[in-house]
Amino acid sequence: MRGVVMHAPGDVRVEQREDPKILAPTDAIIRLAATCVCGSDLWPYRGVDAVEGATPMGHEYVGVVEEVGADVRNVRPGQFVVGSFVSSDGTCEICRSGYPSSCVERVFMNAVGTQAERARIPHADGTLVATPGMPDADLIPDLLAASDVLGTGWFGAVAAQAGPGRTVAVVGDGAVGLLAVLSARQLGAERVIAMSRHESRQKLALEFGATDIVTERGDEGIQKIKELTGGLGAHSVVEAVGTQQSMHQAIRSTRPGGHIGFVGVNHDVTLAGEELFFSQVHLHGGPAPVRQYLPELIDLICNRKINPGRVFDLTLPLDEAAEGYRAMDERRAIKTLLRP
Amino acid sequence: MRGVVMHAPGDVRVEQREDPKILAPTDAIIRLAATCVCGSDLWPYRGVDAVEGATPMGHEYVGVVEEVGADVRNVRPGQFVVGSFVSSDGTCEICRSGYPSSCVERVFMNAVGTQAERARIPHADGTLVATPGMPDADLIPDLLAASDVLGTGWFGAVAAQAGPGRTVAVVGDGAVGLLAVLSARQLGAERVIAMSRHESRQKLALEFGATDIVTERGDEGIQKIKELTGGLGAHSVVEAVGTQQSMHQAIRSTRPGGHIGFVGVNHDVTLAGEELFFSQVHLHGGPAPVRQYLPELIDLICNRKINPGRVFDLTLPLDEAAEGYRAMDERRAIKTLLRP
Repeated sequence: MRGVVMHAPGDVRVEQREDPKILAPTDAIIRLAATCVCGSDLWPYRGVDAVEGATPMGHEYVGVVEEVGADVRNVRPGQFVVGSFVSSDGTCEICRSGYPSSCVERVFMNAVGTQAERARIPHADGTLVATPGMPDADLIPDLLAASDVLGTGWFGAVAAQAGPGRTVAVVGDGAVGLLAVLSARQLGAERVIAMSRHESRQKLALEFGATDIVTERGDEGIQKIKELTGGLGAHSVVEAVGTQQSMHQAIRSTRPGGHIGFVGVNHDVTLAGEELFFSQVHLHGGPAPVRQYLPELIDLICNRKINPGRVFDLTLPLDEAAEGYRAMDERRAIKTLLRP
Repeated sequence: MRGVVMHAPGDVRVEQREDPKILAPTDAIIRLAATCVCGSDLWPYRGVDAVEGATPMGHEYVGVVEEVGADVRNVRPGQFVVGSFVSSDGTCEICRSGYPSSCVERVFMNAVGTQAERARIPHADGTLVATPGMPDADLIPDLLAASDVLGTGWFGAVAAQAGPGRTVAVVGDGAVGLLAVLSARQLGAERVIAMSRHESRQKLALEFGATDIVTERGDEGIQKIKELTGGLGAHSVVEAVGTQQSMHQAIRSTRPGGHIGFVGVNHDVTLAGEELFFSQVHLHGGPAPVRQYLPELIDLICNRKINPGRVFDLTLPLDEAAEGYRAMDERRAIKTLLRP
């Protein structure tokens, strides 16, 4: 089959990869209907994370089940499925407590590489959720978003306790930040402040339900959030970048007793214990437990209540993956969908 | 009046201080029935925090109201009162949301210095809670504990979501850690693991309801907590020290999705964003919103349901405050009560 392989920073190729096979009786093989490039794929692409030799890429996926192992009960060949970017057995104590992304048996799907024609999904029963029937073609980008960026934005908003009566600020205008805006509104937040300096992203944020746009960053951005919240800071802040600056911006924009959901994969971030202590915020984040939210998200999508696929502003054939990476790296695209 | 003044690290004296006066119509003056030395007083005593000239000391207090300002409505002269180590107006949005220790008008009572015969309490209405009648003399240490160490341990346990069905680990065996053990049990925790290497403190932890004692520290302590929790880590961890080592121990002893209440005033602590991210814990702490818990804690004490005053294992006249500090510094005493 054909699949995306990164050889070095900036060097992404589509080449022949071995066809996936059932390795464990709990595996499933899916044929991808769509896959995409993640903001986190840009870390190795930009050389911030090391590239250790030729690395299959991709961890987001939707598609049709082709084959299942002997122990798989919840999905069957022919079904259209959505899965999380982390596989989970669905039965361990951590899964049952609502944290499948920290399942004791988890596999990060990067290890599989879903930017390909087909993929092996470990722990299919605990990882995949079938849609009600074959979805309309126009829903495929929305369902693909659920696999990671929507689920991650949703977790950010949940962790930040976005809800009725609350003002939510979102730091970061990438796909996850924009979908945190959508999630916060969907969860009932009264006011959602999107922090963005890019006109096209501001537009999408407003479409997703942002009530305010703050273009300032750093200390000025924090000052602006305070001004909008009676000097106190937001009740809820979603951090969707993962840098030192964005984490500081999140912590300093939150009122005492408020909640931060941080879902940007942290890179070289150090937090001063003293500041966290006296800020009196709640801090929670990490790899989003997407699987937990999939049934609800699929339902919202199939009933056309939300349209998270709007974050894909570039669609390319899988063979043109290199251009998809380039466009995101140069911020010409928010997020690239690849059609195998 | 007489009061404790720190002149330099290790140099604590009881000397004549000016009598407190009503400065604002919301003030009250109390005559102290008892005060005490806090673990946090040891930071300047040990020279870790700077001592900026002669500094009146103390922030914990119980006593009888002597005089109130013209606007005070909730307490009156003659009442026995308990107050938090942070004054709060009780009316701002942050107070009303349950975080009086971050009140927009707060005054840390260190600025007043309650290791003295009398003290001015700002925002008396929002800060003080009267007991039902004059308490029995033997309850005074318990009520004094509520002013800070009990309220702080309680907040740690609440922030860590100690409760039925949960295993709680407590890092730190000072007065706050020990009272976090008491609080966790009182809140219904099934299992409470006290981490302590000191026999007398282990004994008190068991008396307060600890079900397990872990004497190991650092990596070995974390390993031990994992062994006691099916390899997953505790649901809830209270951090009651505030050092780099204790914060790491807390984070690494908590299972994914678990909760940490950190109430040790952080000193020179830096947390790696990456580790926090992948740990997937909930982190919440800071100066405890003691005032919020006072009515409940006073009720438990006056009904003799809890005996937090057991942490005072040394009682001295105010004039011997220097010895009280020394005994705590040398870990001969857990906590020193001073009688003015």
